[in-house]
Amino acid sequence: MIETYNAIPKPDTDEIKQRLEIAHQRLSEQQLLMKDSKLPVLILFEGWGAAGKGTILGQVIKTLDPRFFSAVSLHDPSTEEKRKPFLTRFYTEIPEAGQFKFLDVGWMGEITKDVLFERSSKHTYKNRIGSVLRFERSLTDNGYLVLKFFFHISHKEQSKRLAALAESKDTSWQISDFDVWENEHYDECYKVYDKFMEETNTSTIPWYVIDAKSKKWAELQVMETLVAGIDVALKNHTLTVPLIQNIFPLIKMPKLKEIDLKKSISDEEYKLELKELQTKLRNLHNQAYRKGIPIIVAYEGWDAAGKGGNIKRLTAALDPRGYIVHPIASPKPFEKSRHHLWRFWIRLPKTGHFAIFDRTWYGRVMVERLEGFCSENDWQRAYNELNEFEKELSDWGAVILKFWIHIDKDTQLARFTDRQNTPEKQWKITDEDWRNREKWDLYEQAVDEMIAKTSTTYAPWHILESNDKKYARIKALKIVTESLEKALKEKKG
Amino acid sequence: MIETYNAIPKPDTDEIKQRLEIAHQRLSEQQLLMKDSKLPVLILFEGWGAAGKGTILGQVIKTLDPRFFSAVSLHDPSTEEKRKPFLTRFYTEIPEAGQFKFLDVGWMGEITKDVLFERSSKHTYKNRIGSVLRFERSLTDNGYLVLKFFFHISHKEQSKRLAALAESKDTSWQISDFDVWENEHYDECYKVYDKFMEETNTSTIPWYVIDAKSKKWAELQVMETLVAGIDVALKNHTLTVPLIQNIFPLIKMPKLKEIDLKKSISDEEYKLELKELQTKLRNLHNQAYRKGIPIIVAYEGWDAAGKGGNIKRLTAALDPRGYIVHPIASPKPFEKSRHHLWRFWIRLPKTGHFAIFDRTWYGRVMVERLEGFCSENDWQRAYNELNEFEKELSDWGAVILKFWIHIDKDTQLARFTDRQNTPEKQWKITDEDWRNREKWDLYEQAVDEMIAKTSTTYAPWHILESNDKKYARIKALKIVTESLEKALKEKKG
Repeated sequence: MIETYNAIPKPDTDEIKQRLEIAHQRLSEQQLLMKDSKLPVLILFEGWGAAGKGTILGQVIKTLDPRFFSAVSLHDPSTEEKRKPFLTRFYTEIPEAGQFKFLDVGWMGEITKDVLFERSSKHTYKNRIGSVLRFERSLTDNGYLVLKFFFHISHKEQSKRLAALAESKDTSWQISDFDVWENEHYDECYKVYDKFMEETNTSTIPWYVIDAKSKKWAELQVMETLVAGIDVALKNHTLTVPLIQNIFPLIKMPKLKEIDLKKSISDEEYKLELKELQTKLRNLHNQAYRKGIPIIVAYEGWDAAGKGGNIKRLTAALDPRGYIVHPIASPKPFEKSRHHLWRFWIRLPKTGHFAIFDRTWYGRVMVERLEGFCSENDWQRAYNELNEFEKELSDWGAVILKFWIHIDKDTQLARFTDRQNTPEKQWKITDEDWRNREKWDLYEQAVDEMIAKTSTTYAPWHILESNDKKYARIKALKIVTESLEKALKEKKG
Repeated sequence: MIETYNAIPKPDTDEIKQRLEIAHQRLSEQQLLMKDSKLPVLILFEGWGAAGKGTILGQVIKTLDPRFFSAVSLHDPSTEEKRKPFLTRFYTEIPEAGQFKFLDVGWMGEITKDVLFERSSKHTYKNRIGSVLRFERSLTDNGYLVLKFFFHISHKEQSKRLAALAESKDTSWQISDFDVWENEHYDECYKVYDKFMEETNTSTIPWYVIDAKSKKWAELQVMETLVAGIDVALKNHTLTVPLIQNIFPLIKMPKLKEIDLKKSISDEEYKLELKELQTKLRNLHNQAYRKGIPIIVAYEGWDAAGKGGNIKRLTAALDPRGYIVHPIASPKPFEKSRHHLWRFWIRLPKTGHFAIFDRTWYGRVMVERLEGFCSENDWQRAYNELNEFEKELSDWGAVILKFWIHIDKDTQLARFTDRQNTPEKQWKITDEDWRNREKWDLYEQAVDEMIAKTSTTYAPWHILESNDKKYARIKALKIVTESLEKALKEKKG
């Protein structure tokens, strides 16, 4: 029952006033500590229409430096947004390190509304609950404080407030159609809200049900919970996070050493196959577009292994309006100060589109691991986070193809030397490439671990033997076309 | 759906054999590492009747040193066990550090059976799910590896196996009445099992659904999950655990400094009230016994504050068959090597009984904190663990009374000196008492924090002013009788 989650006895007016002062004082001190320790805080304001969310939000932020927070009112998703995975809108909004972000209606609002208006199946609902639980946990694991408030008033109280608002033109605009509908279907809504909160009420990220009958008392509950939450999060900030055992179905993969790099293709065969496969792909992409299947192609591999050329042969077959290539460099400051997957969430394709990533989210367990750009705890946790990320994409209906373009050390040396000695290729080779080459063995070890731990049945790695670049291109095109054919066959409608 | 949790493609017979050998080899190495790092592992074997749990358990333990594991078949709870909180049977069975414990049917079995036979209400079911989630999380937070296996076979397969077992007298005894019932109600059971697993399937302690059609393949799934789980747990063993923000309703409490210790009572008044209150308590206990209300009284306080005498005045009113006093000293090795609350779980009263604790589970946030007997992370996490523990007891229907017997520093000195100078009291004073006294200020700080963070509405602290011991005794008796009266009024039937 909504009311019983954490009902605290209400103090008298004087005590409320006194404690509010203390809480605001504490919060104003905390925002500096947050800045110092780079703690990001995501605060969800959910609850009944006319429960006073806006007013209380106004009170809470009074104490905050405007540079430290932002508040967003999320409305129903647009047609464009509906073509992205469910969590995209919410990932997009997560705050930067040291910042507050207030969401006035977030994932709870969207999920429960879709249930109430019968816009989502039981299956979708269950999937979304799972997504939300993983999303919230992953934010917390990555150092976020997530606080979820539900502003609760009784049916009677809501009716009274709506009637009062309706009385004058100055206030009646505040009543939305949904507020009216919600009030007329209060009991039905209650059940759906209660169920949602029960299913997403975890020890680590619980719901705080705010008794919102009195505004000052509601403000105090929010303020004290917020202050206590920041206290705990600041303590947790220096802690490591326990690892999670894998639950995703893995495919047994070979080690890089076991790959036969002698595979090659003749020039004629190459030309013939290339043309054939590209034509096929063009057709398949048209069908995928009509059926709304998104395709995500992730490229990783050794320097000079032939990533660029491989990608080119793929995009050559695609309608430019239907794909985008994302070259992934080291994260910019505004990217680095968010969850490491944020910059990929905001780059996801729409349904029916291709997104091709030239280097990917796997940087975490390769370069970031080896160069010490993240903690050991961070990259060890990442295998599961990456599998979870791709599970979201797969559940959404995406075809996910991950290519490791593979060459041996000698081939790399030959290509580096060639680049160095050929003026028009010199831009392609940097000191960093040589430095990375020195760490070949460490990289090989990291790549073997990555491939073993993230080759799930729904998003396996494909190793492209690229000593012969042409062979690798044909193999990539074959895998893309075959996977698309399979996905088209499985997708109804 | 049960099947889809983590279905892995089944390898061929040769590969199964090969991988089984590797897994057994790894496990036999791991048991020594486990011993060294004191990792306890609790393994739940749940699943369909005739799914082969016993056979596979037999295979798994073949690799283990008999000193390192034990296996228990839990049957339906006895009448005695039903008079304890639901989790008691399972807490009792948790392994010691460095040990494996296999539970052949655990909390899932009991909860789902009660649903199937309509022995538990929806409310009870929900409460139990919450209890289980907290139980599993708390074990993990305290360094346990918890692995939950569900052995899955289809209805057809189960029917086939039961028929085969029934054919001969040598095997037919293996079929239980419940196996037959389960087979006849397979679809109904499926729904209940699936729902339970879905509701208790968390990222950190997931269900592993074992495809149990082929025994060797089932064994491999169990073995590889077990080995991977121990790998992760060994890595986590050195990590700290993030703190959890409080969700329990707290009562605002005064600091010890603010307590007025001048309160006293005259001798006549004391005698009169004592007699009256003890008679009243005797009556109330009879009623509580008949209504099955358990009462837990927890005593903490300064050395020489008068705990012993206070407890005596309480027990004097009780039927000796209806109460037990547990003096709590520092934990014995077999207690220290388990979850810190284990030794209290096994000392809980039956319904209708009193359990009086002379020192308590709060040692964690007092002496263990101050003497460094546990890590900072341990005692910081404990406030929530203690609130959760008492929530279990409160949900079970227990009256929980926590007394802090309070005196000032001068009074303690006077009593210490008196003990030192009176031959028949000398046994009551030790060097440790003097050492603790030197840390008075640190203790006071810890006690203030403890009282502030664990005075929940369902189990608040009561501060007994005990400069006048008689005053404190009367106050304790008043609180016990009033609380019992209230509980009796609220309890129907």
